[in-house]
Amino acid sequence: MDIYLDNNATTKVAPEVIEMMMPYFTDMWGNPNSIHQFGTKTHKGLSVGVDQVYLAINANDKADIIFTSCATESNNWVLQSIYEDIINKSDKNHIITTEVEHPSILETLRWLEAEKGVDVTYLPVNEAGIVEARTFKSYITEKTALISCMHANNETGMIFPLKEITKYAHEQGVLVHTDAVQSVGKIIVDVQDLDIDFLSMSAHKFHGPKGIGALYIKDSQKLTPLFHGGDQMGGRRSGTLNVPLIVGMGKAIEMAIANLGVMNTSVRAKRDRLEDSLLELEDFFVVGSREYRTPNTILCSVKGVEGESMLWDLNRGNVGASTGSACASEDLEANPILISVGADSELAHTAIRLSLSRYTSDEEIDATIKIFKDAVYRLRKISSSYAVVGGVMK
Amino acid sequence: MDIYLDNNATTKVAPEVIEMMMPYFTDMWGNPNSIHQFGTKTHKGLSVGVDQVYLAINANDKADIIFTSCATESNNWVLQSIYEDIINKSDKNHIITTEVEHPSILETLRWLEAEKGVDVTYLPVNEAGIVEARTFKSYITEKTALISCMHANNETGMIFPLKEITKYAHEQGVLVHTDAVQSVGKIIVDVQDLDIDFLSMSAHKFHGPKGIGALYIKDSQKLTPLFHGGDQMGGRRSGTLNVPLIVGMGKAIEMAIANLGVMNTSVRAKRDRLEDSLLELEDFFVVGSREYRTPNTILCSVKGVEGESMLWDLNRGNVGASTGSACASEDLEANPILISVGADSELAHTAIRLSLSRYTSDEEIDATIKIFKDAVYRLRKISSSYAVVGGVMK
Repeated sequence: MDIYLDNNATTKVAPEVIEMMMPYFTDMWGNPNSIHQFGTKTHKGLSVGVDQVYLAINANDKADIIFTSCATESNNWVLQSIYEDIINKSDKNHIITTEVEHPSILETLRWLEAEKGVDVTYLPVNEAGIVEARTFKSYITEKTALISCMHANNETGMIFPLKEITKYAHEQGVLVHTDAVQSVGKIIVDVQDLDIDFLSMSAHKFHGPKGIGALYIKDSQKLTPLFHGGDQMGGRRSGTLNVPLIVGMGKAIEMAIANLGVMNTSVRAKRDRLEDSLLELEDFFVVGSREYRTPNTILCSVKGVEGESMLWDLNRGNVGASTGSACASEDLEANPILISVGADSELAHTAIRLSLSRYTSDEEIDATIKIFKDAVYRLRKISSSYAVVGGVMK
Repeated sequence: MDIYLDNNATTKVAPEVIEMMMPYFTDMWGNPNSIHQFGTKTHKGLSVGVDQVYLAINANDKADIIFTSCATESNNWVLQSIYEDIINKSDKNHIITTEVEHPSILETLRWLEAEKGVDVTYLPVNEAGIVEARTFKSYITEKTALISCMHANNETGMIFPLKEITKYAHEQGVLVHTDAVQSVGKIIVDVQDLDIDFLSMSAHKFHGPKGIGALYIKDSQKLTPLFHGGDQMGGRRSGTLNVPLIVGMGKAIEMAIANLGVMNTSVRAKRDRLEDSLLELEDFFVVGSREYRTPNTILCSVKGVEGESMLWDLNRGNVGASTGSACASEDLEANPILISVGADSELAHTAIRLSLSRYTSDEEIDATIKIFKDAVYRLRKISSSYAVVGGVMK
């Protein structure tokens, strides 16, 4: 049995999504910009895909949803263009974000700091694993152009108080962007209720294909394109439309929304059962309160066990998990989120992320509990440090 | 019979390419950055795909080939980053290009002119439909940072003297980028022979999937990323690797190179036969000498016939063609290339592009000749202007 518990890194493509995409590879491969039948017969599928995404996040007709190649593109686009459109053209020069954003936010901001002189405030998470809205509020100045705050964290699953953040930000004329890659398909994401200005998402996180994402833009407000060119998508993002993947993203998000109930009942119950069982281990630590976490995620730490060794043991048992973000999985440094929530440095080196999906079965949870515990016992037995430090073998 | 003669806009995905990609949607959907088996089992396919692209354009090990979402991304990346890395950091401030580049070059350069004060020289094509290397040479100054010149034109198929251009440019320390979207898979593209610094390509122009392209970077030279983030592709282009589409692009380019002989013998012969038959029409005009054109392309003009009306008649006969670039197909203005090569304004409004592929059959050519000529006769009969101007009805 192959057990995949790394659904925050990427997800299995839903069979129904593949089935929807296939005709756009085999038959309807025309360029939608062409005015002959080979082009125009793609239009219906495209239109359905676009509508599915609008509906899924409750976007209204005044908004633009622009398809990109991934959330990394969406995130780069927003940040680089807020620099171009606002910071480079006004006396505003300040962006507020968190220390625990995805690298596509953090690295873009570090580049804007180093190369463009943008003033960036990186807020640490508190012991609960989030940044409070009032903390953002206290850092807003008349120079602040943008707040960029993730909706849910990729490693911990912790949900940030976005609605409250946009309220405070808008009171002071500050735009808000959110990287919602980890929330779409896991919790309700309603762009109107959140009153968010820009929202990034990625299909491969909710059982869609890799290579397609989107950026929601409230009221179709101005944002200099990252890709200039042939005027596709109203000139907002040039490049031949990726018809099969837009169709696939539409189907995937429709299914993800239809499964929000499943995600928040049966998937959540499986996650809780897994977590409760693992909490029977001594010196075992889970980040964040369950009620403020996405329903599929556990970021845990096990004293006396190296994260990498754990992954190898899990992998040998055919359980796929990660030490944190796949985007930084070759990095063996201490996990910054664990440090922020107050874990000691030994714990911070052993972060393991387990992330479920609607395809995760009860049998897989049973097997994972056994494989995980066996791995901890085995590794603690050969870990001189754990014995010396005084951990109790179980 | 559906006849597709718009292969410069996009191409049918080769069935073998779909077959290669499918397992990466259904089974090997892991994130290649993950260190567990779900991630690592994608590595072999990725590695094969990358090798196929290196081999196809004769890139050496010192070069980088970075996968992007499309040639529009590759083109934006090079131009925006030459601005960041050279123009913004030295006293160089000049880019030379042609008037007939793809919109993803022209619009990016217009943006750099308007927003960043870059000095851009747009060279017109001569009556042969190209820009001579010595013309580029004569515009190089000590301020020139880059020449960006397409390898083959999307509308006419005319091949530009790239090898000679890079020779002159390198003698004066100027970098050269080429948009090779229309040459890869149609003629030999050897990056070492061309001695090119940067080369953009796009899979969907050679029977690969939409949504995947690449940028070749000679000697892995510095180029600020357009996408900052999770360090994928050595930090040069962040974002989760699009495994199925990279696999598909590799297979597609391998097949395209294997079919270069077919393209330059039987496809060329079909194109020539189509062109010769259409040249029997009076007041019929084709742009550019055949020997300097890609073997699949005809850009023609028919006096007394509106381009759009022609397209509708062709489409009614199930022939898909275009008035020029699909990226500007909703634009009814005079075709700038036809103006440049000296066509009068009436001709310039009636450009029709016919572009073949290795899937084009002799039967399709026979049918197209009949449908095309019938359309011309019909439209000329109802065109008062053609009769008045004095065209001879045939």
